[in-house]
Amino acid sequence: MSESDITLDLARAERIGLEEAIFCAHTTTAQLAAILHALAGAERRALLTRLSAARRDELPHALRMRLDYDAVSETAFFDWQEAAIEIDRVAIVTAGSSDMPVAREALRTLCYAGVGARLIADVGVAGLWRLQARLDEIRACPVCIAVAGMDAALPSVLGGLYAGALIAVPTSVGYGVARGGTTALHAILASCAPGIVAVNIDNGYGAACAALRILGS
Amino acid sequence: MSESDITLDLARAERIGLEEAIFCAHTTTAQLAAILHALAGAERRALLTRLSAARRDELPHALRMRLDYDAVSETAFFDWQEAAIEIDRVAIVTAGSSDMPVAREALRTLCYAGVGARLIADVGVAGLWRLQARLDEIRACPVCIAVAGMDAALPSVLGGLYAGALIAVPTSVGYGVARGGTTALHAILASCAPGIVAVNIDNGYGAACAALRILGS
Amino acid sequence: MSESDITLDLARAERIGLEEAIFCAHTTTAQLAAILHALAGAERRALLTRLSAARRDELPHALRMRLDYDAVSETAFFDWQEAAIEIDRVAIVTAGSSDMPVAREALRTLCYAGVGARLIADVGVAGLWRLQARLDEIRACPVCIAVAGMDAALPSVLGGLYAGALIAVPTSVGYGVARGGTTALHAILASCAPGIVAVNIDNGYGAACAALRILGS
Amino acid sequence: MSESDITLDLARAERIGLEEAIFCAHTTTAQLAAILHALAGAERRALLTRLSAARRDELPHALRMRLDYDAVSETAFFDWQEAAIEIDRVAIVTAGSSDMPVAREALRTLCYAGVGARLIADVGVAGLWRLQARLDEIRACPVCIAVAGMDAALPSVLGGLYAGALIAVPTSVGYGVARGGTTALHAILASCAPGIVAVNIDNGYGAACAALRILGS
Amino acid sequence: MSESDITLDLARAERIGLEEAIFCAHTTTAQLAAILHALAGAERRALLTRLSAARRDELPHALRMRLDYDAVSETAFFDWQEAAIEIDRVAIVTAGSSDMPVAREALRTLCYAGVGARLIADVGVAGLWRLQARLDEIRACPVCIAVAGMDAALPSVLGGLYAGALIAVPTSVGYGVARGGTTALHAILASCAPGIVAVNIDNGYGAACAALRILGS
Amino acid sequence: MSESDITLDLARAERIGLEEAIFCAHTTTAQLAAILHALAGAERRALLTRLSAARRDELPHALRMRLDYDAVSETAFFDWQEAAIEIDRVAIVTAGSSDMPVAREALRTLCYAGVGARLIADVGVAGLWRLQARLDEIRACPVCIAVAGMDAALPSVLGGLYAGALIAVPTSVGYGVARGGTTALHAILASCAPGIVAVNIDNGYGAACAALRILGS
Amino acid sequence: MSESDITLDLARAERIGLEEAIFCAHTTTAQLAAILHALAGAERRALLTRLSAARRDELPHALRMRLDYDAVSETAFFDWQEAAIEIDRVAIVTAGSSDMPVAREALRTLCYAGVGARLIADVGVAGLWRLQARLDEIRACPVCIAVAGMDAALPSVLGGLYAGALIAVPTSVGYGVARGGTTALHAILASCAPGIVAVNIDNGYGAACAALRILGS
Amino acid sequence: MSESDITLDLARAERIGLEEAIFCAHTTTAQLAAILHALAGAERRALLTRLSAARRDELPHALRMRLDYDAVSETAFFDWQEAAIEIDRVAIVTAGSSDMPVAREALRTLCYAGVGARLIADVGVAGLWRLQARLDEIRACPVCIAVAGMDAALPSVLGGLYAGALIAVPTSVGYGVARGGTTALHAILASCAPGIVAVNIDNGYGAACAALRILGS
Repeated sequence: MSESDITLDLARAERIGLEEAIFCAHTTTAQLAAILHALAGAERRALLTRLSAARRDELPHALRMRLDYDAVSETAFFDWQEAAIEIDRVAIVTAGSSDMPVAREALRTLCYAGVGARLIADVGVAGLWRLQARLDEIRACPVCIAVAGMDAALPSVLGGLYAGALIAVPTSVGYGVARGGTTALHAILASCAPGIVAVNIDNGYGAACAALRILGS
Repeated sequence: MSESDITLDLARAERIGLEEAIFCAHTTTAQLAAILHALAGAERRALLTRLSAARRDELPHALRMRLDYDAVSETAFFDWQEAAIEIDRVAIVTAGSSDMPVAREALRTLCYAGVGARLIADVGVAGLWRLQARLDEIRACPVCIAVAGMDAALPSVLGGLYAGALIAVPTSVGYGVARGGTTALHAILASCAPGIVAVNIDNGYGAACAALRILGS
Repeated sequence: MSESDITLDLARAERIGLEEAIFCAHTTTAQLAAILHALAGAERRALLTRLSAARRDELPHALRMRLDYDAVSETAFFDWQEAAIEIDRVAIVTAGSSDMPVAREALRTLCYAGVGARLIADVGVAGLWRLQARLDEIRACPVCIAVAGMDAALPSVLGGLYAGALIAVPTSVGYGVARGGTTALHAILASCAPGIVAVNIDNGYGAACAALRILGS
Repeated sequence: MSESDITLDLARAERIGLEEAIFCAHTTTAQLAAILHALAGAERRALLTRLSAARRDELPHALRMRLDYDAVSETAFFDWQEAAIEIDRVAIVTAGSSDMPVAREALRTLCYAGVGARLIADVGVAGLWRLQARLDEIRACPVCIAVAGMDAALPSVLGGLYAGALIAVPTSVGYGVARGGTTALHAILASCAPGIVAVNIDNGYGAACAALRILGS
Repeated sequence: MSESDITLDLARAERIGLEEAIFCAHTTTAQLAAILHALAGAERRALLTRLSAARRDELPHALRMRLDYDAVSETAFFDWQEAAIEIDRVAIVTAGSSDMPVAREALRTLCYAGVGARLIADVGVAGLWRLQARLDEIRACPVCIAVAGMDAALPSVLGGLYAGALIAVPTSVGYGVARGGTTALHAILASCAPGIVAVNIDNGYGAACAALRILGS
Repeated sequence: MSESDITLDLARAERIGLEEAIFCAHTTTAQLAAILHALAGAERRALLTRLSAARRDELPHALRMRLDYDAVSETAFFDWQEAAIEIDRVAIVTAGSSDMPVAREALRTLCYAGVGARLIADVGVAGLWRLQARLDEIRACPVCIAVAGMDAALPSVLGGLYAGALIAVPTSVGYGVARGGTTALHAILASCAPGIVAVNIDNGYGAACAALRILGS
Repeated sequence: MSESDITLDLARAERIGLEEAIFCAHTTTAQLAAILHALAGAERRALLTRLSAARRDELPHALRMRLDYDAVSETAFFDWQEAAIEIDRVAIVTAGSSDMPVAREALRTLCYAGVGARLIADVGVAGLWRLQARLDEIRACPVCIAVAGMDAALPSVLGGLYAGALIAVPTSVGYGVARGGTTALHAILASCAPGIVAVNIDNGYGAACAALRILGS
Repeated sequence: MSESDITLDLARAERIGLEEAIFCAHTTTAQLAAILHALAGAERRALLTRLSAARRDELPHALRMRLDYDAVSETAFFDWQEAAIEIDRVAIVTAGSSDMPVAREALRTLCYAGVGARLIADVGVAGLWRLQARLDEIRACPVCIAVAGMDAALPSVLGGLYAGALIAVPTSVGYGVARGGTTALHAILASCAPGIVAVNIDNGYGAACAALRILGS
C-alpha cells in the first residue's frame, strides 16, 4: 500500500458540508499511515473513528504526536485546532453507562465540527424519574441524539415528550435476544412515537453527521 | 377423523390446575366436531381458541348452540355456566387499540376460569400521561398482563413502576421491522426493567394460563 | 368497541408539535368509526394512514363525506381545511415509479401539516443522468426524503451530492433477496455516505414527521 | 468516568420491590469502581452480575474485600449480610450440568433477596426417570425455574406435570442449530404445555426477579 | 408443455429402490396431465404428493378415475393395485391432531410401497401418560416416524425410551415463534436424545422414503 | 399518474447495450398504460416482465393488441418484430419442470434481444444420467444458464463438467427449509465448483441480461 | 461441583441400546473430572466428545492415562477395551478434506460401539469421477454417512445412486453464505433426492448413533 | 492425514479450464503439507487461497521456499513460473481501501492464470467523481470485477454506466446491519441495474474464476 493507491475525497466538505472521516477498523496500520501522510501533504486535518488504542500505538511516533486521542470513543483528531464553542445545540442522551463509547463518538464528532453538545447519561426508562429530571435541558436543544441498547425504550418515551429532531442510535449492548443491537434498531424503527429516525448500530459518528446536516440546513 | 382417533387429556386440570383447551386454527371442522362430541359424551365443558367466525358457522347447529362466542378474540366457551366473580385480580393493559383481540383472549380465558380481570386499553408510552392516569388501578392487582406490539416499550416502562408479577404478550401489530411481533418479543425479553416474563406472540391464552398458575400458587 | 374504550392523545401536538395520526391497518371498521366520532365530538381534525379504499367504503356515509381521500397513498384527511402553502421546503425523491405510494404518503402528511413539498419521481441510479438533471431542485430544499426499494442505492449517491438533512425511506418494492424492504433498509443504514437517517420500511408518514421535527427546530 | 456521571436508581426497591443490580459485562473497571464507591457512599448493598473473575481481580483491593463472589455464576454481593432462610419456595431445575452457571445465577439472586431455593440438577428428558424421581421436591415449591438449552424439552414436560408458576430460562448450551439459545427460547415459547413463561437466554437473574415478583404478590 | 418436454426417471426404483414420485405443488394442471399421460404410456403406476382437491378436480375425467385419492394427506395413487400387507413395521406417532395431514402422507407412502404401518395419534408430552400407554406398540416396530410441530418435544422424549430407528418430521403447526416449523426442526436437530434424524418440515413423504431405505437395508 | 410523471431511460441501450425493461409487479394498471403510451409516443419497443394474465387483461384493448404475451413466463413484447436467429449461443438448463416459468423468462429475454437459446428441461441430479445425456448440447454453447430450486445441486455438478460461463438462477420452488429460494441461492454461492455466478431468486430476466453482457463483450 | 451433583443415566444402554456419552464442550474441567470419577466408581466405560487437547491436558494424570484420545476428532474413550471388528457395515463419505474431523467423530463412535466402518474421503461433486470410482465400496454397506459442508451437493448426488440408509451430516466448513453450516443443512433437507435424513451441523456423533439405531433394528 | 488420504482432481483444468485450487482456511498444516507433497510428486503447480502468514510459517522450509506469497490477499503460488502478460482484459474496481484484500485475491488468481488485470481502488459512490474519472479505463476491459462492502452501491452505479460483463463481489467490510457482507450481497442481487452477477462474500477467487470462464468462452 503506497500513497499513490489512495484517493482522498478532499472536496467532500465543499459538496456536502462534511469532511471525509477515516474509518480505521478495517484498515491496516500501513494503510492508515499512508492516509495520514497524504492528509499531511495536502495540509488537511481529519477525524479518525474506530481507532483502537493498540492500533494507535503501532503508528509512527511522528504521526501519533499529531493525534488528539479519546480512548473511550476510540476517536482521534489529526492536526486539529481547538476552537471556542458557545452554546449547546445537541443533547446526547444515554440509557445506561454501557452506551458511553457510542455517545462519546457522537460528542467528539460534534466537537471536531465546532458544535456544542451536552451529554446526559444513564437515564433509562426503568427509572423514569431520571429522564424527567433532565427534560428541560434536553428541550433546550433543537436536536437530540438518543443512545440506547437492549430494548431501546428510551427513544420511544422521549419521542412523546420532546418536539425537536430526534436521532436514535441503537447500541450493541445486551446479550441473547438483544442480538448485537438488532432488537434495539428494530424497536426504534417500529416505535409508536412519530418522527424518530435511526442510524446504524453503534454509529455515533453517523448520528452526529445527521445532526450537522440538520443544523446546517 | 372419527372420535376414536381423539385422545383427550381429561385429567389435566387435576394434574396442573388448567383444563386442556382446544386450539382450532389447524383443525378441520370435522376434527373439531368430533372433539366437541367427545367432550359432550364425557360431560365436560371446554375453552376454544382461534375459532374464526367462519369456522364456527360451519359447525352443526346443535353444537353451535352450546357455544358462548366472542368475535373479537375468536374464543368460545362450550357448555359453560357463568358464575359470580368478586374482585379483579389481574390487570390487562394494552398499548393500542389494535392489541384488543389478544387482550380479550386473555380476558376471556380468565373469565372462563372464574378469575376477575380489568381491561385498561390504549395507554402506550407515546402519550405517557395515559399510563400514569391508570397506575393505581393496575397496582391494585397482584398480576398484570401487558399487551403490546411494534416496539413494545410499554412493558419496560411498567416494569419500572409496578411491583407485581408482570407478564408481557408481544403482538403481531405493526409492519416492516415489526416482523410479525418478533421485535416486540425481543424488546420485552431484552428489557432493562427486571423480572418481566414473556409468552409467545399473540398468545393471550398463554398469558392468562400463566396468571392462573401464579394466582393458584 | 365503544367510544368509552378510546383514549385519544389530544395534547400531543402541544407536547411535540405533531398531532396523533390514526393508523388504520389493524383497526376494525367499528373501532375506526368510534375513533372518528370521538374526534368529531372533540372538534378535532385528523390524518388517517393505511386506510384502504375497501375499508373507507365500509364507513358510514356521514363520516365518509368528511374525508379527503387519496387512493394511491391510502391516506385521508378528516375535517381538514386546505390552506395556502408558499414555498417547497422538502424534496421527495423516488428511485422508481413503484415507490410512489410511499412517497405520496409523505407528501400528503406534509400537506396536512401545511408544509410545501416537491415530488421528483423515477430518478434511480441505473440511469444516473436522471438524478443529475434534478439536483438543483433538490438542493433548493433544506430537507430531502429519498424513497427507494430493492438495493436502495439512490440515498447513498444523493448523500454524496446533497448537503441538507437526508431522510431515507426503504420500500418493500422488489422480490427474492429484496426481502420485503429489509435489504433496502440495511443498505441505507450501512451507507458509505455520512449522516443519512432511516425510518421503517414503507413509512412515508414517519419520514414526513421527521421532516416536520427538523423544520420546526 | 467519574462518580458524578453515575445516576443510581436508589428508590427502585421501594417502587417495585427489587433493588437495581449492576450488570458488569459492558462496563469498564473504572466505571465499576465508580459505581461501587457511589454505593458505598450511599451506604447501600448491591448485587453484581456477569462479573468475570478477571474483572473482579482488577478492582481495587479495598472494594474486592467487600465482595462475596461466586465463580460459577459470576455473581458478587457487595456489602451483603447473610440472614437465615427458613424454607425453600423456589425449585431451580436444570436439564444438564452445562446449565449450572445460569441456574446458580438465579440461586444467588434469590439468596441475596433472602428467599430459599433448591437446586435440582441434571434431570433432562433423555432419561425421564431422573425428573420423575425428583417431582415431589419440585411440587413442594410454589414457583419453579426450569433451566435448559439445546431443544429445551424439559420445561414442556414439566409443564404437564407441575401446577405452580413455571419460569423457563433458555441457555446458550449447544452448537449448530442450537443457535446460541434461540432454539431453546423458541421451543419454550411454542410449548404445547400451557402457561409457561420465558426470560432472555442465559438470564438466570431475570428469572429470579420474576420469582420475587410472584412471591411478593 | 407437451409430453416431449418431460424426462421421467423410470429407472429410479432399480437404482435406489424408490420410484420417482410426482410433487404436484409447483406444477400446472397441464404439466400434471402430460406427466400422467407419459406414465400411462410407459405402463407405470405413480405416487402423487401435494395434490390439492381443487387441482385434482381440474384433471381430465379419464385421468381422475385412475387416481386413489386421500384428501387429508393430499396424496393420490395412479394406476395402483392394492396388495396384502402382513405386519406393521413402522410406527407413525403424532403429537397433536393438527399433525395428521403430514402423518397420513407418510402412512400413504408406506402403503403405496406395500409396507405396513400403525398410526398412533395425539400423544404429545403435555400429557405424558398418553405416550406411555402406547409405548409397547411403538417398540414392536423397528422404525418409528415421530411427527410434531411447535416445540417438538415428543421426539426427544421418545428418543430416550425407544431403541429403534427414529425419524422425526417437524410440522408447520403453531404460530409466532413456531416460525412455520423452523423451531420444531431445530429442536429436533438439537435434541439431547442421541441418534434422532430429521427430514424437511411437513415432509411426511421423505420420512417414509427414509424408512423404506432403512427397511430395505 | 400521468405520462408527465414518467422518466424513461431511453438511452440505456446506447450506454450499456441493454434496453430498459418494464417490471410490472409493483405498478398499477394506470401506471403501466401511461408507460406504454410514452413508449409508443417515442416509437420504442419494450420488454415487459412479471405481467400477470389478469393484469394484461386490464389494459386497454389497443395496447393489449400490441403485446406478444407468454403466459408461462408472464412476459410480453411491446411493438416487437420477430427476426431470424441463426445459432444457439446460450443453453438454459432446469432441474425440474417447476423451474419452467423462470427458465422461460430467460429464454424470452434472449429471444427479444435476438440471441438464440436452447432449453434443456428436467435434468436434476437425483437422476444424473439425464444431465449426462445432454452434456454435449450444453457444451456447444459458450454460456449456460442453470435454473434450480430446493437444494440447487445442479449448478455445482454442472460447474465440474462444463467449461463456459455459468450463470445460476435459484428458484423459489420447494417448501420448508427451501425458504422461498434462499437455500438454493446460498447453495449456489457456496458451491465447491469454481466460477459459478448467481442472480436474484427467480430472476430469469437478470440471468439473460448477464448472458447478453458476456456475449457482447 | 462434587460427585453428588451428578446424575448419570447408567441404564440408557439397556433402554435404547446407546450408552450416555459425555459432551465436554460446555463442562468445566472440575465437572469432567467428577464425572469420570463417578464412572470409574460405577465401573463403566464412556465415550467423550468435543474434548479439546488443551482440556484433556488439564485432567489429572491418573484419569488422562485411562483415555484413548484422537486429536483430529477430539474424542476419547475412557476405560475402553478394543475388540475385533469383522466387516464394514457403514460407509463414511466426505466431500473435502476439511470435513475430516466430523467424519472421524462418526468413525470413532462406531468403533467404540464395535461396528466396522470405512472412511472414503475427498469425493466432492466438483470432480464427479472421484465419487463414481468409489461407488461399489459404498454400495457394499447397508448404511452410508455423507459428510459435507458449503453447498452439500454430495448427499443429493449420492441419494440418486445409492439405495441404502443415507444419513447426511452438514459441516460448518465454508464462509460467507455458508453460514456456519446452515446452508449445507438446508440444502440436505431440501434435497431433490428422496429419503435422505439429517443430523445437526458437525454432529458426527449423532450420525453414528443413528446408524447404530438402524443396524440394531 | 497421509498422502494416501488425498484425492487430487488433476484433470480439472482439462475438463473446465480451471485448475483445482487449495483452500487453506479449514485444513491443518499437516493436511496442507501432504497436499503440497502430492502436487510436487505429480509435478503440478498450484494456487493456494486463504493461507494466513502464520500458517505459511508453519510449513516445512523446503515447501515454503517454493511459494510465491502475497500477504495482503493471503494467496500463494506453488511452483509457479511467471510469464509475460500483454494487455489488461479485466478491470478490478473497489469501493474503499478496506476492500483491498478481496480485490487482490482476484488479481492474483488472474495473474496465476496469465490474464492481465488492472486494479482501480477507492472509487466508492459517496464521491462519485472518483468513479467518473476512471470510467474510460474500466470501459476498455471486456470484464469488470466490482468489489464493495457495506451498502455496495458501487456495482449498481457501474451497472448503469458500463456495458461489459459485470461480476460483483460483496465484502464483509462494515459493522451492525452490514452483517458480515450479507447486506452488500443482497443489495447487489436486488440491484436495479440489469445483468449484474454475484459471487459469495469475500470470494475474490471465485470472481476471477468466473472472469476466466467468460474470457475463455
